[in-house]
Amino acid sequence: MSMIQMFEKPLGMRDTFPAIYEKLENVRQTGRQYLRTNGYDFIKTPTVEYYDTVGKASAIYDASLFKLVDSQGNTLVLRPDMTTPIVRVATSKLLKEKIPLRLAYFANVFRAQETEGGRPAEFDQMGVELIGDASVYADVEVISLAAGLMKEFGITSYQLTIGHAGILQSILTSYTDTNEQAEELRVLLVQKNFVGFEEAVLAFGLPTMKTQSLLQFIEEASNLTSLAQIEKYVTKNDALVYMKELEELLKIAGLAEEFAFDFTLASHMNYYTGMLFEVFATGSGFPIGNGGRYDGLLHNFGQPVGATGFGLRVDRLLEVLPKQTITQQTAVVLFEKGCYEQAVVRAATLREQGKHVTMQAREAVVNEAMFIEPFGEVITITAGGTKQ
Amino acid sequence: MSMIQMFEKPLGMRDTFPAIYEKLENVRQTGRQYLRTNGYDFIKTPTVEYYDTVGKASAIYDASLFKLVDSQGNTLVLRPDMTTPIVRVATSKLLKEKIPLRLAYFANVFRAQETEGGRPAEFDQMGVELIGDASVYADVEVISLAAGLMKEFGITSYQLTIGHAGILQSILTSYTDTNEQAEELRVLLVQKNFVGFEEAVLAFGLPTMKTQSLLQFIEEASNLTSLAQIEKYVTKNDALVYMKELEELLKIAGLAEEFAFDFTLASHMNYYTGMLFEVFATGSGFPIGNGGRYDGLLHNFGQPVGATGFGLRVDRLLEVLPKQTITQQTAVVLFEKGCYEQAVVRAATLREQGKHVTMQAREAVVNEAMFIEPFGEVITITAGGTKQ
Repeated sequence: MSMIQMFEKPLGMRDTFPAIYEKLENVRQTGRQYLRTNGYDFIKTPTVEYYDTVGKASAIYDASLFKLVDSQGNTLVLRPDMTTPIVRVATSKLLKEKIPLRLAYFANVFRAQETEGGRPAEFDQMGVELIGDASVYADVEVISLAAGLMKEFGITSYQLTIGHAGILQSILTSYTDTNEQAEELRVLLVQKNFVGFEEAVLAFGLPTMKTQSLLQFIEEASNLTSLAQIEKYVTKNDALVYMKELEELLKIAGLAEEFAFDFTLASHMNYYTGMLFEVFATGSGFPIGNGGRYDGLLHNFGQPVGATGFGLRVDRLLEVLPKQTITQQTAVVLFEKGCYEQAVVRAATLREQGKHVTMQAREAVVNEAMFIEPFGEVITITAGGTKQ
Repeated sequence: MSMIQMFEKPLGMRDTFPAIYEKLENVRQTGRQYLRTNGYDFIKTPTVEYYDTVGKASAIYDASLFKLVDSQGNTLVLRPDMTTPIVRVATSKLLKEKIPLRLAYFANVFRAQETEGGRPAEFDQMGVELIGDASVYADVEVISLAAGLMKEFGITSYQLTIGHAGILQSILTSYTDTNEQAEELRVLLVQKNFVGFEEAVLAFGLPTMKTQSLLQFIEEASNLTSLAQIEKYVTKNDALVYMKELEELLKIAGLAEEFAFDFTLASHMNYYTGMLFEVFATGSGFPIGNGGRYDGLLHNFGQPVGATGFGLRVDRLLEVLPKQTITQQTAVVLFEKGCYEQAVVRAATLREQGKHVTMQAREAVVNEAMFIEPFGEVITITAGGTKQ
């Protein structure tokens, strides 16, 4: 093995150094505390799942899955999301004990990358799943939790954009001539490729009224402050009534200023069937989180019950967190041969005062100036006495 | 996909449900706080590493590695331990900044299993690595930290057994006729197969004095309260002087009652070159943790510096933890249609009092008695009023 190879990591894989680890740990603890206070129980699932169970159901592109083969010849995957594993657990066991079920997670998920310098191949997600509740209150709850987490993290400038997979589907179907055209447009919206959407609409050769409707839709439907603005595109139906109720309840929940509607919102997660939403914050070009109602996935697992939830991308969250002050500087007790007992006593005393203390034999330090540089306090214990 | 397949997990993979998750989280926080107080910085490394970088160097049996192939055709592994990845990070970057380096981790590692019902294929380890310090003080420090963690977790009945890879090697070489015989005996000790050791010694057809020495060694060397007892097997050398110093320092560190010597201790980690140790606790048939000096691994990564550390098996730790009292019972606010605002206010008030509160729309609950059963407090809000 060459010296270069020795230090390499696989494509898209990252190390997390102490300074970032501390921020990550703060997010983990703050979020955990908040979600526990809101009645959510944390669970953990294996990193590795069967391809047939979780890999296929997860609706992540097949090329993005890390696949491996076990000694029995079964194909395994590194979990690409947490929703599918939690649904596996819920439908196989927990759902029998308690419905509705409120579960939370903080976990790493995996997406294979083709090129270096791009997206991470492994990243942490924190999120919740509310399983067994098909009511609009469940959707209000998860949206409120996403907003609540932003506040807990001290992020003041954020926005929730809310759409509906069913309403989007009915608009795309109404104003195109074939299901293939509707699907092509949906995929372009998943990619947030609005220019491509307009080009495709023009290329379809639809009747002028349909073309104009779609172009106007794409122009104005991505940032609606009121539901009334979408009513001109769709026949009054249950989904609209549902969204109206959602809007009112979100206002009661104190989120009037925090949300807008975006009916162009579409997900590559094809199990999203109803309301879906994204979380944005100033400072990140990507959504920090997303979620929605995924009753369809529960049906696939043989449980015809409602389910809704969301996940936050912790790496993106770290980028928009307010600057934190360092809470704790470490002291070092440097001791010479024969002074170990004094050093033990001194370090113990400092730790009882709540300090972080490193003990270090002076004989093992090659470059003392460089070693002590990061410490806030240096105590040197020699046979001749203690220097502070 | 059949209904059975749907709920299956790969061989040796486990789900962690809320009650165990909470214990795990307590261990994680308690341990983290303790190690931070002792001047250790936490880092995280990727779940997936190159086989050539970490897989081979980790000294885990090849058949126990989870292997996969990336899009470029490179072989990857799920990390089988944390020592090798941390050495990769330390030697490639951190070691240049600060020597000695004190790093800690809480991470899952992977070992492929051949049969169900046996050992877990994924488990959490918590540990430290002290890199760049070849002094005996570094070994005292990591042994003290292992003991300190036990105390922090409230485990009163534990023991540290300390051996030395070099001393064992010199004894096995001295009293056998070939290196192959010595290696065969060493492997049997790794497996803690003492009966096999005796059988092999007898089968070698060694001179009677050698045979008797080895049989007496295996009889008495696994639980020595004093180093004097091992001196009859070995010529006085640096390793013995080192162990004598270690013994004295451990007593100064207040661990006189917590440790014993076991010179039959051997590790399948062939990078252990000096002192090695195991941590046992009443209630677990397996060691809860193990560690030692692994200067050899650093040499392999091109850095001729000392390194020592240990890792605890968190799953085994959970089995021996003292029973914990439930600290927090969750309250539920059950509300009827039209009472959402009152429910929001009530839940917020209870949360401000520090309570964990679940909000639940009554209309979505199928079996109310079963749903509310786990809650410590039930508040029902209807149009007619609030019932507590």
